[in-house]
This record gives sequence, C-alpha cells and structure tokens, in this order.
Amino acid sequence: MKIAIVGAGALGLYYGALLQRAGEDVHFLLRRDFEAIVRNGLKVFSTDGDFVLPHVKGYRTPDEIGAADLVLVGLKTFANDRYEELIRPLVGAETRILTLQNGLGNEEALAALFGPERVIGGVAFLCSNRGEPGEVHHLGAGRITLGEFLPRDREWTEALAALFVRAGVECRATGDLKRARWEKLVWNIPFNGLCALLQQPVNLLLARDASRTLVREIMHEVIAAANAQGLTVPIAPAYADSMLEFTDRMGEYKPSMQIDREEGRPLEIWAIFRTPLAYGSQRGIAMPRVEMLATLLEQSAG
Amino acid sequence: MKIAIVGAGALGLYYGALLQRAGEDVHFLLRRDFEAIVRNGLKVFSTDGDFVLPHVKGYRTPDEIGAADLVLVGLKTFANDRYEELIRPLVGAETRILTLQNGLGNEEALAALFGPERVIGGVAFLCSNRGEPGEVHHLGAGRITLGEFLPRDREWTEALAALFVRAGVECRATGDLKRARWEKLVWNIPFNGLCALLQQPVNLLLARDASRTLVREIMHEVIAAANAQGLTVPIAPAYADSMLEFTDRMGEYKPSMQIDREEGRPLEIWAIFRTPLAYGSQRGIAMPRVEMLATLLEQSAG
Repeated sequence: MKIAIVGAGALGLYYGALLQRAGEDVHFLLRRDFEAIVRNGLKVFSTDGDFVLPHVKGYRTPDEIGAADLVLVGLKTFANDRYEELIRPLVGAETRILTLQNGLGNEEALAALFGPERVIGGVAFLCSNRGEPGEVHHLGAGRITLGEFLPRDREWTEALAALFVRAGVECRATGDLKRARWEKLVWNIPFNGLCALLQQPVNLLLARDASRTLVREIMHEVIAAANAQGLTVPIAPAYADSMLEFTDRMGEYKPSMQIDREEGRPLEIWAIFRTPLAYGSQRGIAMPRVEMLATLLEQSAG
Repeated sequence: MKIAIVGAGALGLYYGALLQRAGEDVHFLLRRDFEAIVRNGLKVFSTDGDFVLPHVKGYRTPDEIGAADLVLVGLKTFANDRYEELIRPLVGAETRILTLQNGLGNEEALAALFGPERVIGGVAFLCSNRGEPGEVHHLGAGRITLGEFLPRDREWTEALAALFVRAGVECRATGDLKRARWEKLVWNIPFNGLCALLQQPVNLLLARDASRTLVREIMHEVIAAANAQGLTVPIAPAYADSMLEFTDRMGEYKPSMQIDREEGRPLEIWAIFRTPLAYGSQRGIAMPRVEMLATLLEQSAG
C-alpha cells in the first residue's frame, strides 16, 4: 500500500517506520529531519526493540509524492490550516485519509475539505518523543483505535487495522469513533493541560493527594460531557481511576503539550480544550475546571 | 502610645512610619533592614508625598522592646508559628494586639495564645513594596478597617481608628470584622492566586475576556462562601464588578503573593486559600475554582 505520512513528528515517524518495516511503501513528508533521514535513514529507539531503516523515502513537498492509497496525518492541530496545501496533492480517487491527531474537530475539518467518505479517525495512545534529526524515541504504549467518520465501509477499516497489527501495532476498529476520541480526552485534558501549565511530568501530579484529586475531578467533568454526546455505551466514572493507575506506571512521562511548551511551540488548546468545551456546553454540561485550565493555558501562553 | 511593629515588611514599615511621624512612640522589630534603619533612618517613597524619618528605634529582639500598649503584627502568615516567640515579650497587662495580616485564622491563633480580649483585626488595602534596606515604597491605597475579635470595647477600637486617621490613614472601625476579612478575600483570592501562578501582573489578567471572566467567577465563589458565614449584611454579587473596576485602575500592579513567588519566599496559601476553603466547606459551599487554584499554587511551589 502506498502510504504518505504528513506531519512526521514523533507519532508520524514512529508509525511510518513500523509500516515500512512491515513492507508497506511509505513516503514521508519531512521538514526538520529531511537531510538526516534522506542521508542516513531513520533510527527508532523503542521499548519493543530498536531498529534502523537505512533507506527511507523522504520528500520536501507533497507534489513529489503524488496520490497515495492512505494519507496518515500526524500534524499538530494548530497546523490544521495547512490541510489543503499539504494533503490535496496526495488525494486520488481512492485515497483514504487517516488522522491520528489529538482532540476533536480534525475529522470534521478533513471531511469538509476532501469528502467525508475518505476520512478515518484514529485514536493513538503512544508515548514517544523526537530525538536528534533522523531519530525517534518510543517510550511505551502505541495502541490505536480506528473508526470511520461516516460508518460506511467497515471492511476497509478492519483491513487497515489488520495492516497495523501486521506492523506490530495493537490496533482495532470501532463502530463508535466519538467514544474513542472522548476516552482519550479523559487522559489528554488533565495531563496535557496540567503538565504544560505547571511544567511538571505526570508523576509529580500524581504524587500528592490534592493534585491527584484535581486530575480525577477534571476526568469526571470530561466523562460527563462525553456521556452527553450520545455514545453507544457511556464511559463509566471508574474509567478515571483506571486511567490514574495506567498513568502511575508511566513514571516521569512528559505529555506532548508540556514538551510543546518547553520548546516554545504553540499549544493544541483548540482541539484538546476549546472544542470539547463547546460540545459539552451545547449539551448543558458544566466543566468549570476544564474551562479554568484552558483559560490558564491560553493566558500563560501569552 | 508605645507601639511595637512585628513583621516589618512593606506593610509594617509603612504604617509604622506614618504612626511615628504622627508623634507615636514606635519600636520596630527588624531583621533585614536593621543596620540600614538604625544607621540612616527610614525613607518612605509614597504617592502621598515622600518623607524621611532620620531617627528610628530599631531592635533585633522583642525583649529589648518590652511591654507595649499596641503590638502591630505585619508578619507573613507562613511565619505565624513564631507568634509566641516574637510577641510574648511585648505583652503586658493592658497590651492590645492588632493583626494586619492577610487571610483568615490570624485573630483566632493570636486569641488562643494571648487571650481573645486583646485581639483586634485590621484589614488593610495597601499597595506597597519593600525597596533597598531602609526604604519602603507606597504605591497607592492604604485604608484600614478595624474590628474587635470579641466585640467588647468598641470605644478603644474607635480610638485606635482615630489614631490611624491622625497619622494620615483612611481608617474606620467595624462591628463585623468577619465581613471585612471576607471582602478583602474577594480580591486577594483571585488576584494573589492567579498572578502568583501565572507570574503576571493584574492588568494582563484583566485584559482578556476569558481570564477576566475567570477572576469574576472566582470572586463569586468567595462571595457565596462569605455569605454563608452569618455576616451582618451579605456581600452583594455586584461587589465583584466594583473590585474588577477598582483593579483596572491599578495598572501593572503585582500582588504580594506574586512578589513572594518571584523572590522564592513561601506563599500565604494557608491563610488566603485553605482556611477560607475550610470555612466554605463547613457551610456546604462548593468552591471548585478556588480549590483548583490553591492546588495549582501548592503544586507549583514544589
């Protein structure tokens, strides 16, 4: 399958590398890492075992890649205004577009530009960071839940899940993409937000009763908003506790938004905070702590 | 009147200087500023006009001062565990103790140690900062509301208010000290908390709709908790708006807690946040934003 990777940060490089290793024809749209990857290939340092891809197809523009069977979008959501420019040249008659981006609103924006029938959403639980140019670090996890934006061709989505599984990724297809997105927000909203605001990794937040309680309360606000969206099966309040325990095992992990802030990049506040808040508000769900966290992040970003 | 100043930071130095200029017999318990003040006196740079006190009675220990008619306490509340050591030597049979400290719980702690009949609370709205040793900067405001901890000798308190007025301080006595304390918290909780957390002066918080709304919401939580405490007259919700407008006129003002954090001092979280939260909680008032702000401050203080 001809696969184009758009947004080759830690997530795009990692999944692209796994897909290429599994024999897929992967084309990376690169910026920072172009020189290093075209010259020396891509090194993956992974808790599942390191590996090197000595020959990687890297490009500076999407026109050089042309129409692909699958476009995998790993852009930071604050770059979504570049969808048209970066993705249009990759779209042919049969092209599917898979967004593995954070938060809400990405499938909708892609559907509006390229047609809803092409769009698949994927929710990735991945701990990864970029290293030196040409390197990517996989620190743990990596499972993906895939779902069609318009339930229409479940077989294709199941086949895509099987392709990820062959590449070594724990992957399944769901009929309720919305639920999978909100489940991830239950983690993303408190941890990305608080770690970025306080510039502290997850273990420091979990170490004290007061801040651990705050994380749980924020999770419960997100679960309440999620369950007002008409999910097939509601998210149980106990999901918050299982996420806290899951995160206890992550050690000194820094969520992506904390790293974005450390490195002076914009924060994904719109996709991870403001859009979920708007969906909650439409259904009359009060989210005072999430609202306060979003406001503090915007204010601290200056 | 023999007056001892304990906690001669910006507030203690400023009011002590005004009282001495008005002819009172003021004794300053000093630490950082001892050498400078004993050698060169005290310089007051004030929006009401600068002045110098060339001769100031400064001491290193309270025993050198001995029993006073009035002890004016301006300590940071995180130093309240030093009440016994610093104040006991100043207390004679007729001594009154006036605390101008921030937050809740100070009168109670002084009453427990020295007897409730001696204790007067004062709520000061003062914009002041310390400068070089031997200098204090008065940036604006300065009014004090005085109230007895146990309503018992209103005449004495009225006389003390008159003494402050003679010294140039806008001062009045109230029969409802509790209300005056909570009124100040309506300002202190959002502005001290948010400015310290974000390291931004008040004008930046007021400049954006989202953060201005957050300040107002926090004020409304404090007003709800205040009005559950059995005040003689409830605090109107519109008080929040008048405090916002009052603060608009303060420009780039940094609240004391922001300066404490900049200078690496402990924060007055117990008196300004945790004690009011406990009083609110006892009356069943939910204060999610105040609770979150306290938790974020504790967490950011490490």
